[in-house]
Amino acid sequence: MATHKLLLLAGDGIGPEVMAEVKRVAAWLDQAGLASFAIEEDLVGGCAYDAHGAAISEDAMARAKAADAVLLGAVGGPKWASVPYEARPEAGLLRLRKDLQLFANLRPAICYPALADASSLKREVVEGLDILIVRELTGGVYFGEPKTIIDLGNGQKRAIDTQVYDTYEIERIAAVAFELARTRRNKVTSSEKHNVMKSGVLWKEVVTALHERAYKDVELEHNLADSLAMQLVRWPKQYDVIVTDNLFGDILSDIAAMLTGSLGMLPSASLGAADPVTGKRAALYEPVHGSAPDIAGKGIANPIAMIGSLAMALRYSFNQGEVADRIDQAIAGVLASGKRTGDIAGPGTETIGTQDMGKAIIAEL
Amino acid sequence: MATHKLLLLAGDGIGPEVMAEVKRVAAWLDQAGLASFAIEEDLVGGCAYDAHGAAISEDAMARAKAADAVLLGAVGGPKWASVPYEARPEAGLLRLRKDLQLFANLRPAICYPALADASSLKREVVEGLDILIVRELTGGVYFGEPKTIIDLGNGQKRAIDTQVYDTYEIERIAAVAFELARTRRNKVTSSEKHNVMKSGVLWKEVVTALHERAYKDVELEHNLADSLAMQLVRWPKQYDVIVTDNLFGDILSDIAAMLTGSLGMLPSASLGAADPVTGKRAALYEPVHGSAPDIAGKGIANPIAMIGSLAMALRYSFNQGEVADRIDQAIAGVLASGKRTGDIAGPGTETIGTQDMGKAIIAEL
Ligand SMILES: CC(C)[C@H](C(=O)O)[C@@H](O)C(=O)O
Ligand SMILES: CC(C)[C@H](C(=O)O)[C@@H](O)C(=O)O
Repeated sequence: MATHKLLLLAGDGIGPEVMAEVKRVAAWLDQAGLASFAIEEDLVGGCAYDAHGAAISEDAMARAKAADAVLLGAVGGPKWASVPYEARPEAGLLRLRKDLQLFANLRPAICYPALADASSLKREVVEGLDILIVRELTGGVYFGEPKTIIDLGNGQKRAIDTQVYDTYEIERIAAVAFELARTRRNKVTSSEKHNVMKSGVLWKEVVTALHERAYKDVELEHNLADSLAMQLVRWPKQYDVIVTDNLFGDILSDIAAMLTGSLGMLPSASLGAADPVTGKRAALYEPVHGSAPDIAGKGIANPIAMIGSLAMALRYSFNQGEVADRIDQAIAGVLASGKRTGDIAGPGTETIGTQDMGKAIIAEL
Repeated sequence: MATHKLLLLAGDGIGPEVMAEVKRVAAWLDQAGLASFAIEEDLVGGCAYDAHGAAISEDAMARAKAADAVLLGAVGGPKWASVPYEARPEAGLLRLRKDLQLFANLRPAICYPALADASSLKREVVEGLDILIVRELTGGVYFGEPKTIIDLGNGQKRAIDTQVYDTYEIERIAAVAFELARTRRNKVTSSEKHNVMKSGVLWKEVVTALHERAYKDVELEHNLADSLAMQLVRWPKQYDVIVTDNLFGDILSDIAAMLTGSLGMLPSASLGAADPVTGKRAALYEPVHGSAPDIAGKGIANPIAMIGSLAMALRYSFNQGEVADRIDQAIAGVLASGKRTGDIAGPGTETIGTQDMGKAIIAEL
């Protein structure tokens, strides 16, 4: 059995607590002979800044490049509110995305039936919801230049950010969306603001042309980003795969995740292009939720999204879909048994802590 | 009694139908001696393109500048999907905003108690909701240069949009938000993405400094735009006034409006700076909803947001708050009587058309 080189970057806030449960599950899988891992660990985010003065060290970057997959907890917190811009916790995550060329961010928004009542939306609106946001992750306003603040004198400054998209960047992310739609309900909704942004005009043009050329079997629709945000709130089940740019994807995927009431449950994958010879691709897996500094260190954080990220790695990076299925089933089993962390507790459920949730999942395995 | 010079730009889709009810109400107010209007009408959007080859004519622009207030219906529709970019329907609206310097867009999101069940969110999440989004409307990525598509050869193009904000632009919109908060629940939430955008860094800095300098009595918090979008879905009642940039405001205000279940009910105001001598300010009032081409011409559109826009004009431009209150009460009265247009119909209500809704509101007046 191939040994998977995993780099764990637990990060800040609740990151280390939830990552500890990934280690627990990985150790169990190893022992049970279901998967074999060679695990390294390093720092990212505020803790890396505290140790090295940078949000990720060169050493950690080198390890990330050498790994088969990176698992990341979360970055950021009030402690680092005033560190220099280039060293802020998020810079570590952004550098990983950019340097590993992880252009395709897959964010599933799934409503777990047992948790439908945890949503602020009516049960019938979200029950059974299963949409996938495909977000472009290495372009757009996150990385475009110029990106600067100029002093104009007289107490006036001017801030500039630049949204840049090239045809090939739009084409490759759209291709990912169309391919994934074929394995699902065969529908892609592309979202931009072509009515006010030139990048939206090009986005729509490129997605439409690619669809014509190679994916006519997939249903394609275009929704303006503001209208899509509205429709997500009104009736999210109309969507299957949503493809959009870096900034809109940031917002829309957070909305979609929150709709489900299952935020602490949702993993995500950030993937690079497959190597034409080996088929290997750079990959980073992380929960959709953030570092939740308010509950960090209390042992009450929900580790399911983080453990689900390991399952996603097994599925997308290691071709071990059956083992991933087993983890997902174990998670469903624990939920069905009524065991919950505080964030997803409801009437009649039993509230347990982070470690007990990890152990309960292993017991189910 | 001063005569108010109103320019009505009904626009496309359901615009003309809902604007007809504004004319009905305005005529009634005139006759009842409650207000005096001198009404002109002109074209904007797709219909202006059809007539003049531009989304707004120079003549209409001149009339808009001369008016005390502009009322706009809605622009756009599939009919104009392939007109040249510079002449697309939205360009008319954008030019009005820019040339009249309507930098402050006020978008109230109010949940009418009678309509709480029309929301996709649980009643307890939205009942009594009353938030105000203050959106910067003349800057940011909507207008920043360069804004272009470059041909790179080899089938590759590059699209560029530019987000630009100067200190004074942020300061003046933040001041509007703080002032309005003082008349409400005294809390402002400022939203940007300072963790990835330099404009977010400047935005946060300027809002914080202005708060320190002049509005320490108002509670101020900062929320990242993605997190705010989530929180709006989870528990919107935590907010009072939200101040944000042009693009985030576009999306966040649409989400907030959709939460209420009252989209067809919500008017908005776009205001310029007050003249230091006369106190007059350029103003445009329009519904939050769009042109709804799918139901245009059927006589079933909800005219309440459009009539509410007239009430807002009376309140903000004409200092006739009592008359505005009377209109708002008449609207509430009609709703309480169980009369509804199709979009807000529910069990036990009576569905009526656009014209009958206009007449019912006048009957209540
Ligand atoms: C932490 C931050 C830089 C990041 C982003 O804006 O992309 C986060 O919100 C996300 O969605 O992964
Ligand atoms: C019609 C369009 C240009 C406009 C915008 O994006 O500002 C609309 O969505 C709005 O919010 O008023």
